[in-house]
Amino acid sequence: MNGLHLTADLSGCRSGDSLHTDPEALRHLCLKAVAASGLQAVGQLFHRFPAAGGVTGVVLLAESHLAVHTWPELAAVTLDVYVCNLGRDNTAAAETLMAALVAAFEPAAVQRQVLHRGQAVG
Amino acid sequence: MNGLHLTADLSGCRSGDSLHTDPEALRHLCLKAVAASGLQAVGQLFHRFPAAGGVTGVVLLAESHLAVHTWPELAAVTLDVYVCNLGRDNTAAAETLMAALVAAFEPAAVQRQVLHRGQAVG
Repeated sequence: MNGLHLTADLSGCRSGDSLHTDPEALRHLCLKAVAASGLQAVGQLFHRFPAAGGVTGVVLLAESHLAVHTWPELAAVTLDVYVCNLGRDNTAAAETLMAALVAAFEPAAVQRQVLHRGQAVG
Repeated sequence: MNGLHLTADLSGCRSGDSLHTDPEALRHLCLKAVAASGLQAVGQLFHRFPAAGGVTGVVLLAESHLAVHTWPELAAVTLDVYVCNLGRDNTAAAETLMAALVAAFEPAAVQRQVLHRGQAVG
């Protein structure tokens, strides 16, 4: 259950992009990037907030999950890519997926963090 | 967009509990714990894996998200509670929610991590 959790918090993203406010555009990006990374989607859910127009989206993966939150009013986005490494090492796939998502938002700055999960578990 | 992301990776959880394998039982726990914490659910999705019988669940929150993965074959569970603190400080609610979920699984050991998100953003 040893896993790798990557986060990237983006600021100064390209403004006016539909990815920040259109759940369908964000869903398309996420599912395309998951497939290209070699990870396996098993479910997805995207929600648009009526007030500020931000979107929250998650893709459930056979390997764990992807989560995206957009704040169009702040030109900000946060990304989570979490993969377990049970059965095979998904590190490269997680990094590929994260890189594709970060690039799509064209941020001016990125705060990245790396968590090693479940080290004590198995 | 300043946020707090709590993770807890549980091992030695009470075996044979339906929370590990029944999406409906896990959904009920999660939604009840979210409501009790004062956070606001805006969507949810739970998926059961046919092979090992584990469950992945997410609750989309007005404040960000909750994610749960179970590995019944390892008696292991990972939990994520991520809240943005835009508008109000949701730290106490996030801690309350995480505490309720950890307690429900009765783990022998817990690996906890705390991430401060989006510090550079606003």
